Amino acid sequence: MSIQIFVTGGTFDKEYNEKNGLLFFRKTHLSEMLELGRCRKKVQIRTLMMIDSLEMTDTHRQTILGSCKKCRSRQIIITHGTDTMEITARILGQTITDKTIILTGAMIPYKFGSSDGLFNLGSALAFVQSMPCGVYVAMHGHCFSWERVRKNRKRGRFEG
Amino acid sequence: MSIQIFVTGGTFDKEYNEKNGLLFFRKTHLSEMLELGRCRKKVQIRTLMMIDSLEMTDTHRQTILGSCKKCRSRQIIITHGTDTMEITARILGQTITDKTIILTGAMIPYKFGSSDGLFNLGSALAFVQSMPCGVYVAMHGHCFSWERVRKNRKRGRFEG
Amino acid sequence: MSIQIFVTGGTFDKEYNEKNGLLFFRKTHLSEMLELGRCRKKVQIRTLMMIDSLEMTDTHRQTILGSCKKCRSRQIIITHGTDTMEITARILGQTITDKTIILTGAMIPYKFGSSDGLFNLGSALAFVQSMPCGVYVAMHGHCFSWERVRKNRKRGRFEG
Amino acid sequence: MSIQIFVTGGTFDKEYNEKNGLLFFRKTHLSEMLELGRCRKKVQIRTLMMIDSLEMTDTHRQTILGSCKKCRSRQIIITHGTDTMEITARILGQTITDKTIILTGAMIPYKFGSSDGLFNLGSALAFVQSMPCGVYVAMHGHCFSWERVRKNRKRGRFEG
Repeated sequence: MSIQIFVTGGTFDKEYNEKNGLLFFRKTHLSEMLELGRCRKKVQIRTLMMIDSLEMTDTHRQTILGSCKKCRSRQIIITHGTDTMEITARILGQTITDKTIILTGAMIPYKFGSSDGLFNLGSALAFVQSMPCGVYVAMHGHCFSWERVRKNRKRGRFEG
Repeated sequence: MSIQIFVTGGTFDKEYNEKNGLLFFRKTHLSEMLELGRCRKKVQIRTLMMIDSLEMTDTHRQTILGSCKKCRSRQIIITHGTDTMEITARILGQTITDKTIILTGAMIPYKFGSSDGLFNLGSALAFVQSMPCGVYVAMHGHCFSWERVRKNRKRGRFEG
Repeated sequence: MSIQIFVTGGTFDKEYNEKNGLLFFRKTHLSEMLELGRCRKKVQIRTLMMIDSLEMTDTHRQTILGSCKKCRSRQIIITHGTDTMEITARILGQTITDKTIILTGAMIPYKFGSSDGLFNLGSALAFVQSMPCGVYVAMHGHCFSWERVRKNRKRGRFEG
Repeated sequence: MSIQIFVTGGTFDKEYNEKNGLLFFRKTHLSEMLELGRCRKKVQIRTLMMIDSLEMTDTHRQTILGSCKKCRSRQIIITHGTDTMEITARILGQTITDKTIILTGAMIPYKFGSSDGLFNLGSALAFVQSMPCGVYVAMHGHCFSWERVRKNRKRGRFEG
């Protein structure tokens, strides 16, 4: 059974619009990143939404929750904006206990070269295969439990 | 206790010498890569050697083995050339059973931009924290046991 | 006599703030870019301002004009946001006729990897050495005269 | 009339073979580089050969000379390995006087990220439009006359 990757947007997939100088979403770079990493694990990628996590509503989170529940794979990675990652993790963590779900993201867009996204994706793929059932946030080389993780916005980092 | 990283060289750390057009080793890029990945796990980096793994002799491998034995951390990552990674893994795996040791490397030098190194480093850091004691090779998003892993040189990939 | 480079900001030097997801200015990357290009021409770099060219006022332009007039080098490059580059070019072009002044910029920030900035900087440095006195915009491999250049914002390119 | 670009190989176009760790040529990256630079000058790209300039023989140089003579454009750029660029420049310079020919190259392969190639290409494109007829080497932001240019191999730079 392959690993399921659900894409929701976030800094990970932001791009620079050279016509107006604004950041925007076009399509996910997940396939490109996995290819760059010479990843040979079988994965399924599905884009659920393409939004900044500050714009994520309860409805969006129910969509994510529903997709995780229905998913036949027991190994799920969710790419997600960092600003509200802990909220989505909590909603999933309180409900789903028979799958390993890893939320991950990036502090810098992948397309901007100096991204931490490739590093985080590598660790998310590893944690999803090796951690016991539960919901986690993989950032900074850490695997934080959904029950304790929170983003320290002032310092721009996750703690837990 | 922090994670121990032993550097041995390999494609990971190769650079291009612009004066003679040859590839060479200067110093490890591990710190730079961990910084780029916004890694916040406590790690210790120590360079044991800086060589192409095709030049690795029994003496070199005994140095690696000795360093792993003496190491107080039970979580060890070894960066290593891919060509003989399986040999070093076997020597370690036959002897050390009370630590989690992850060998990893890259198909493309980190400095050449399109490297899989950052992805592999992320997964190695995750596996070393989450896998049971034993010796493994982390490449392509997989975690191969030392007993089965081998590099398919013709296809340029690890199998196991 | 060395080439004078005046920095005014623009897309060239924008960076991504990973704490709030906004673009901002910190310091110029001109030295870094010239080093990357292995440039060995003697240049003087001076930052006049660090702003988006949409925020550039008459006062800012008088500062640029004054700096160009006082400058002892007859070869001047100005890095500038693309949105109002043509306005600054016109003000300079109407007044200064005894120096070669090249305005250049980028459609994508240098720090975002896929920048046209390095290419434009290379061409600006070449044009400033080889074009007769006058004021020009160097973009897209072209050297546009200040009298005709205009940015086609819809297509995201300069014409002239 | 468009600018003619003749490709001969050199460091510019070298790639890393991840199966054997050697550098090799596949195809030229000139189109990709011009696209990255948002170049909008009309250019014609033709690959004459794909070799290391240390392997360049008299026959190769006669091919280059012949191509330059027959070329209908009076603006020609030649990408060339740096090691013998001065020899080819001399052969062209002694014969062709009614065209502007710019030889350029790179100290680091374009594919290795930290290349000076994009910078040099930008300056070559500018010089070829603005310099009087003659044969030149564009490296390091300089435009060296074929009569004086030489590579200082020890210091890894061009002088003239």
